[in-house]
Amino acid sequence: MLRAYTRHAVVVIAAVVATAVQAAQLPPPVDLPRPRLDNPTTLVQALKARKTGREFSSEALPVQTLSDLLWAAFGVNRDDGRRTAPSAMNWQEIDIYVTLPQGVYVFDGKAHALAGVVAGDLRAATGRQAFVKDAPVTLVFVADLARMKNASPEDRDLYSATDAAFISQNVYLYCAAAGLTTGVRGWVDRPALAKALGLRPDQRIILAQSVGYPRK
Amino acid sequence: MLRAYTRHAVVVIAAVVATAVQAAQLPPPVDLPRPRLDNPTTLVQALKARKTGREFSSEALPVQTLSDLLWAAFGVNRDDGRRTAPSAMNWQEIDIYVTLPQGVYVFDGKAHALAGVVAGDLRAATGRQAFVKDAPVTLVFVADLARMKNASPEDRDLYSATDAAFISQNVYLYCAAAGLTTGVRGWVDRPALAKALGLRPDQRIILAQSVGYPRK
Repeated sequence: MLRAYTRHAVVVIAAVVATAVQAAQLPPPVDLPRPRLDNPTTLVQALKARKTGREFSSEALPVQTLSDLLWAAFGVNRDDGRRTAPSAMNWQEIDIYVTLPQGVYVFDGKAHALAGVVAGDLRAATGRQAFVKDAPVTLVFVADLARMKNASPEDRDLYSATDAAFISQNVYLYCAAAGLTTGVRGWVDRPALAKALGLRPDQRIILAQSVGYPRK
Repeated sequence: MLRAYTRHAVVVIAAVVATAVQAAQLPPPVDLPRPRLDNPTTLVQALKARKTGREFSSEALPVQTLSDLLWAAFGVNRDDGRRTAPSAMNWQEIDIYVTLPQGVYVFDGKAHALAGVVAGDLRAATGRQAFVKDAPVTLVFVADLARMKNASPEDRDLYSATDAAFISQNVYLYCAAAGLTTGVRGWVDRPALAKALGLRPDQRIILAQSVGYPRK
């Protein structure tokens, strides 16, 4: 049931962004550098170091680290546009919303770029716990149910959840390899965050995952 | 919301196995060697090579490879018993059922051992597609809803799905690192497979994932 990323995703992402842009002020552009795929940590070392953390330094992540993180999470890893994480039935329905101090962006994996969604610091809206405002980056995994064509409600529920978690585990392992702290959560005020992000009714927030340096 | 693996899981797994044993003939014991944590592939190389495959050789997996695979999937990676994949709210609700030609086993991560569940070749029952009978190993991710204490039905649906997928992505990356083919699927006759595995009504099959050598 898990097939390839397809080519229309960029168009769909562009439409999503355009919708949000109409209603909100854009954040300053972020020019994402190409990922630097040279981290020497082995997979086994990353698996040994994988853990959940919730104590973050507020130190910003360098944009190169953010680039490497997003590639690991759900970047294109083949010439045909397929990704580092699977997605069900070729739906490629998960978008990664990247919440930074200056605003929220959506990751365009095909172009390896960040498109502005809304200006302002929405990090505290990505969870109910105090630590969420400290982390310099929170990724919000959002399923676009409109892309899950002909799926039953049960299949939409299952695959939107699994497809977000495949990506989240890549984030865990990248953080383990890069000396970063990360923790995923489902405890989110979804209606409030959806409103703040300008999501359509058929977009569903699945999980949020904070990333940063460990608190000293 | 994601916390640690806890100590009572082994007891719970033992109870699950005991229930199944009463109704079914046990397969021959499999003595799982300690995992050999020396694969030199980097995380980035594994992410680059990650893909879904469905063409398997019927060649058996060496038991050492099976051991390494299961450790990567959901093994203990810390002295306190925590795991290579997160689980929500300390529920540790996912069991990995390991379907081999001679029978089905459940992985006990704490002891790093396989406990027999039922004798016989159930591989063809783990999916609806022709290739599923060819793969030498299929992992079936089963959520024990009884461990998800006080969870709402919505939370049970979400976290049982995400927690299985975190593990599944570890399997994808280990396979990419070890030259194995793997593909996950949700297209499973769940009632038929649950009956064949002797599952209780509050155990839920989430995903199945076949693993093997690529077909020559």
